[in-house]
Amino acid sequence: VSREWRQKARDYLSRLAIPRGSLGELLVLAEQLSGIRETLKPSVSKKAVVTMAGDHGVVREGVSAFPREVTPQMVNNFVLGGAAINVLAETAGARVVVVDMGVAADLGTLVKEGKILSYKIDHGTRNMARGPAMTREQARRAVESGIEIAGKLVREGVELLATGDMGIGNTTPSSAILAVLSGRPVRQVTGRGTGISDQALENKVRAIEKAIEVNRPDARDPVDVLAKVGGFEIGGIAGVILGAAYHRVPVLVDGFISTAGALLARALAPDSVEYMIAAHRSLEYGHQFMLEELGLSPLLNLNLRLGEGTGAALAMNIVEAAAQVMGKMLTFEDAGVDGPGG
Amino acid sequence: VSREWRQKARDYLSRLAIPRGSLGELLVLAEQLSGIRETLKPSVSKKAVVTMAGDHGVVREGVSAFPREVTPQMVNNFVLGGAAINVLAETAGARVVVVDMGVAADLGTLVKEGKILSYKIDHGTRNMARGPAMTREQARRAVESGIEIAGKLVREGVELLATGDMGIGNTTPSSAILAVLSGRPVRQVTGRGTGISDQALENKVRAIEKAIEVNRPDARDPVDVLAKVGGFEIGGIAGVILGAAYHRVPVLVDGFISTAGALLARALAPDSVEYMIAAHRSLEYGHQFMLEELGLSPLLNLNLRLGEGTGAALAMNIVEAAAQVMGKMLTFEDAGVDGPGG
Repeated sequence: VSREWRQKARDYLSRLAIPRGSLGELLVLAEQLSGIRETLKPSVSKKAVVTMAGDHGVVREGVSAFPREVTPQMVNNFVLGGAAINVLAETAGARVVVVDMGVAADLGTLVKEGKILSYKIDHGTRNMARGPAMTREQARRAVESGIEIAGKLVREGVELLATGDMGIGNTTPSSAILAVLSGRPVRQVTGRGTGISDQALENKVRAIEKAIEVNRPDARDPVDVLAKVGGFEIGGIAGVILGAAYHRVPVLVDGFISTAGALLARALAPDSVEYMIAAHRSLEYGHQFMLEELGLSPLLNLNLRLGEGTGAALAMNIVEAAAQVMGKMLTFEDAGVDGPGG
Repeated sequence: VSREWRQKARDYLSRLAIPRGSLGELLVLAEQLSGIRETLKPSVSKKAVVTMAGDHGVVREGVSAFPREVTPQMVNNFVLGGAAINVLAETAGARVVVVDMGVAADLGTLVKEGKILSYKIDHGTRNMARGPAMTREQARRAVESGIEIAGKLVREGVELLATGDMGIGNTTPSSAILAVLSGRPVRQVTGRGTGISDQALENKVRAIEKAIEVNRPDARDPVDVLAKVGGFEIGGIAGVILGAAYHRVPVLVDGFISTAGALLARALAPDSVEYMIAAHRSLEYGHQFMLEELGLSPLLNLNLRLGEGTGAALAMNIVEAAAQVMGKMLTFEDAGVDGPGG
């Protein structure tokens, strides 16, 4: 992100006909957008949410309230246009790109019909409580797939990317990634996901502790962490973020699962964090620790805990507003308004 | 607001293909919209922000960083389309209705050209530190004007109203109204507005204390409070909120000045609070106490402190999203998605 353009944006914003700083976070965002796009008129009108789907072998440990079949069923709901992400992306004027990163079902028909993209790595990860969730090679491929998808979308003209996820059980690897990368105790970073019982929460904490014990992921090696305790869609999300940064496009990071991907992206390329915009603070307890690790302040705090990219879609309007503030407002001088007196 | 329709909405929302409650505040809002509009498909697509402008005699006490001339200059900026409220309302798909409630300048040309509405009560209020800001009759007229404007807009098809303000010095009467209605100490509810110096803050606290001492507003009589320590645009905002409630249209309440109007509206008609949606938490310190008095949770927290209706315009997209969630999402049954298991 260009420091020079950030400074130019700051100077320009200080001349707008408003009390200094009175548009708060919109000004912070506007400056970030200018730094990323290297212009005083950043455009974010072409928008896409990339919703990455994958399944998780660890569901066998009884960590989720929903059966695994819900992952392909929800992919189908995305295609029907009846899911929350469809509705919220439409309101935001964004397209939804659904990607099969590793759903444990045959989605070939939807792929052939052009309804979803397939970067399927396998039919779900293996149970991380008993061994690595995937091979190192598969972890690499997951990240590379995300980078490729981001590149494809940017070439198609997308100016604002957002990440989303679908995968029954995927708060479990997300908590595991957070525990490993932050060094926090598993219990502190493990929450109720879709709303699990006390028993399932105990199973979940134990499954993550076992996964870390059995696999000994190396916190200094993000590909190792992803391979041992991650998920295909989480690797894909990390890749989308890296691709956005590479192509100098801002990327809205959704909730808990997406921010686990963001932690991996930052570990792989520290500068990528400057391209991230934290969309919201999830109700999932550990999310605050992820945001803290990344040093990001979320735009929204609406007690969401759904995923799919819903929080990111909701926040798109605020990013758009920030771009419009840069592009369309008049300065004190142009508007003929007196500044503050002595 | 219909309890029956709230309950119907709650039942319907519990069947959507998402983990129960996982869309957080959107579900709360969706239920409120259904209760207000008495339908499961509430529409809020036609939107208007009413930005009320007025001047304040109390600026003579040295309470503001900006000269009084800025009020008409900013009205002119609204007409030019270069102010923050123009840009943010456009992003939200809302029109901006600018109303001269009592600007201390001749805006007749703008009125004749149809660029602003005139409900001008006087050329600014009188200095409340020395006597009542306006007569009781003027206070009534201010509120009635707002009710009339809301009615007019609803008849034109507006489905979502929002309030906004412009008036150099108007955080001073807003703090005064809060102090009187909440019983809190003046110093606790008085902030730096557009960013005033320590000296101006002292002047402001003293001016409010004097205004309350000299006028002895009766906290049980909201018209008396408005007349003695209020402002024309604040009365107008109270009226817009009452008009929205009367016509069963939801109304987004902007920041500190608008919420002072909301406090008066609630005091005049307690049920009006059920039609209010708090748009955001302003950086102006006393705003939190206003929200607390009203029992409202703000949708956004973006460190805004500009007014004009900017926070309300930004929050419109979230209200729209809530309406779309009600209107367009599929249920577990319709989408063929399994619910949570036993």
